[in-house]
Amino acid sequence: MSKTSLSGFPEWLPEGRVVENYILQKIRQGFELHGFANIETRAIEPVSELLRKGETSKEIYLLRRLQEDPVKAAEDPRQLGLHFDLTVPFARYVLENRGALTFPFKRYQIQKVWRGERPQDGRFREFTQADIDIVGDGSLPFFHEVEVAVVMARVLSSLPIPPITIRVNNRKIVQGYCEAVGVTDVEGALRCLDKLDKIGAEGVGEEMAELGFAEEAREKLLQMAQIQGDAAQIRSQVDALACKSELLEEGMGELIDLLTQTEERVPGTVTGDLSIARGLDYYTGTVYETTVTGHENLGSICSGGRYDSLASDGKRTYPGVGMSIGVSRLVSRVLAEGLATSSRKVPTCVLVAVTDEEHRAESNRIADALRNRGISADTAPKAAKFGKQIKAADQRGIPYVWFPDAGEVKNIISGDQTEADVATWEPEECYAKPQISTDN
Amino acid sequence: MSKTSLSGFPEWLPEGRVVENYILQKIRQGFELHGFANIETRAIEPVSELLRKGETSKEIYLLRRLQEDPVKAAEDPRQLGLHFDLTVPFARYVLENRGALTFPFKRYQIQKVWRGERPQDGRFREFTQADIDIVGDGSLPFFHEVEVAVVMARVLSSLPIPPITIRVNNRKIVQGYCEAVGVTDVEGALRCLDKLDKIGAEGVGEEMAELGFAEEAREKLLQMAQIQGDAAQIRSQVDALACKSELLEEGMGELIDLLTQTEERVPGTVTGDLSIARGLDYYTGTVYETTVTGHENLGSICSGGRYDSLASDGKRTYPGVGMSIGVSRLVSRVLAEGLATSSRKVPTCVLVAVTDEEHRAESNRIADALRNRGISADTAPKAAKFGKQIKAADQRGIPYVWFPDAGEVKNIISGDQTEADVATWEPEECYAKPQISTDN
Repeated sequence: MSKTSLSGFPEWLPEGRVVENYILQKIRQGFELHGFANIETRAIEPVSELLRKGETSKEIYLLRRLQEDPVKAAEDPRQLGLHFDLTVPFARYVLENRGALTFPFKRYQIQKVWRGERPQDGRFREFTQADIDIVGDGSLPFFHEVEVAVVMARVLSSLPIPPITIRVNNRKIVQGYCEAVGVTDVEGALRCLDKLDKIGAEGVGEEMAELGFAEEAREKLLQMAQIQGDAAQIRSQVDALACKSELLEEGMGELIDLLTQTEERVPGTVTGDLSIARGLDYYTGTVYETTVTGHENLGSICSGGRYDSLASDGKRTYPGVGMSIGVSRLVSRVLAEGLATSSRKVPTCVLVAVTDEEHRAESNRIADALRNRGISADTAPKAAKFGKQIKAADQRGIPYVWFPDAGEVKNIISGDQTEADVATWEPEECYAKPQISTDN
Repeated sequence: MSKTSLSGFPEWLPEGRVVENYILQKIRQGFELHGFANIETRAIEPVSELLRKGETSKEIYLLRRLQEDPVKAAEDPRQLGLHFDLTVPFARYVLENRGALTFPFKRYQIQKVWRGERPQDGRFREFTQADIDIVGDGSLPFFHEVEVAVVMARVLSSLPIPPITIRVNNRKIVQGYCEAVGVTDVEGALRCLDKLDKIGAEGVGEEMAELGFAEEAREKLLQMAQIQGDAAQIRSQVDALACKSELLEEGMGELIDLLTQTEERVPGTVTGDLSIARGLDYYTGTVYETTVTGHENLGSICSGGRYDSLASDGKRTYPGVGMSIGVSRLVSRVLAEGLATSSRKVPTCVLVAVTDEEHRAESNRIADALRNRGISADTAPKAAKFGKQIKAADQRGIPYVWFPDAGEVKNIISGDQTEADVATWEPEECYAKPQISTDN
């Protein structure tokens, strides 16, 4: 990471950006292989739009033009702010363009988002998210909840990181179970259970007690939240709870179905975990979190869920399901731990040496001829001694140096030097583009 | 463009985004062929950094956290704002990372920028710029001023737009000429001449008079500003002015050199135009503007220049030269006039039909097998009648529909239907990816 005077705003050196671009390209490819169309939404939304979900309000950056009066700007109900996720803007985009879109609408969106919070370790105030969502017009069949997990499992498995685990739960299970055991404050229960990872069962129990949950309810909820495993394990443990409700059974049906299908299509990556709560109110079905093996302290790097009514114009509702990758958090870890590195910090494959400044035009002609054939080329910045020009290539990781007078090209990594014709010469495949080495 | 309730913040429909991505990809490829490395800088800078150039101060968006007091935030000297170009953040990035970068540093940067101005026709408050800059440590040879023009000429000529003209001038000519004719207020002269396109010679003359320029000086300046053409034409017209100064000759030498070299390397795209002034104070050598034939009313879609001291840490100066493409303005015109259109609005090549919901898994297996071979596939959203499933493909522009039971695939554009094996079938090349049709 570059030394930046503003914490929470990550920037990479050119060689880090090569790795980030590699990761972004893998993500895009994976999404497109599965038929997701790309869109971008503006970075700026009216505050009224951003505040529809009260919960995240404290993390928003508001905008004012330099010439505007600060107090008047703050009182203006049409004041603008930076988006803090890609879901809220997407909901607005769907409503605005519903007449022009084809449903179910499968889109991906890779953009920066901003949160005006105090930065902590690994928490950024500006970061890139990569989201997929599938939105239906009026209804959306359950199989799409399987689909997004399958896509994300494949995409994340294509990245230069250790194996990932997508942990899934279903809101209907939690809600149905609450009904069965007589808990009415489902939101309160969800908020407490969401902290199980951080503060443990005892801490969650205490918080529930503070919210007025009876001892029996607390025990029952914690019992449920400790259930984990594959389809069969989840089934038998939930059966052992001996609780029944229609909603619970519906949720169980969906969760078992999801676990069974994902085990077939992306084996070993998806597991059930009834502690997964996800804070946001609007989830109504499957919820997802993702951890990277050995990097659990990163938190969830890909989360989301099913929502029945995020987008609605009053008459019509657009249910959806989506997941979001925290790209910057992931890239930051990959770079910090050297999980992937680039063979060079420039795209250049060939540096054409310059014999003397009077003959720079000749070197330009060679570079242009290579570029015309799709080979990234550059001319040496100085007509210095060839040893220095080779060093200029080496500093940037450029593998080939072309000598115009000799009509020869040298691979400065292998040391091989051969005669070459600019009209036909090809680099060895492994040197054509920057290579990403991974830590596996 | 999608109907958006906020003017000045462009958003595209998925089919428009396909065209934009095509244009962005052409730009990236062109930059990388010429050895430019990609970086991104954060969108947010301290206001003190943004205001170093006073001129654009009125167009800045300032930020405040929702919980912050508006008045206190406005008084905080460390207040943050959104960047309004990519040059100022790049200068900061170079200074912060000077120890880790290799000079001359050639970078490209494609990001959104924001200007808090009232939107006019074609003026956006949020838009994408694509910049190249070459920055030296202490010094930067003139040939890089030729290089950026060559790169931009090639990149812009690869886009689905009519032929472009890069118009160039050299600040040393303007300044040297001012010296020769006794004009001391060079900045004032530049500001007035910059409006020649908009208000004509008469208007510029009037503005100069208001600034106190004598009649003779006004005439001399307007005479110079009307000089246009290739190397020989510029040379003879400037000679006819019969003015001499060392700086003028230096600038003429550079301009002639640039016009001669570009005429050889990118014939017919670069022309001299001594009216090009560019408002910004920091340019010190070549300045560039670019118009699209038949779309002159778009204004300049790619501008920039040579600057000797944008980045400096007091001890050391980093001179540079750069140009910036106004991508959103260009894309907006391309979409509005249909200069390029996409054959489909999804990446999907094959829609696998679903015989009935009980057999969806079979369709998923076919889609997964195609994806594993790099072919973008999707399953039909509903197990409706095949006619309806074909219609679902047609609505999205998906060229192929796969029928699992029959083991056949139909090209719904040509109508051809053939037996197909999922392990070996390949789409016709022209249907593999969305095709961009251009208006040429």
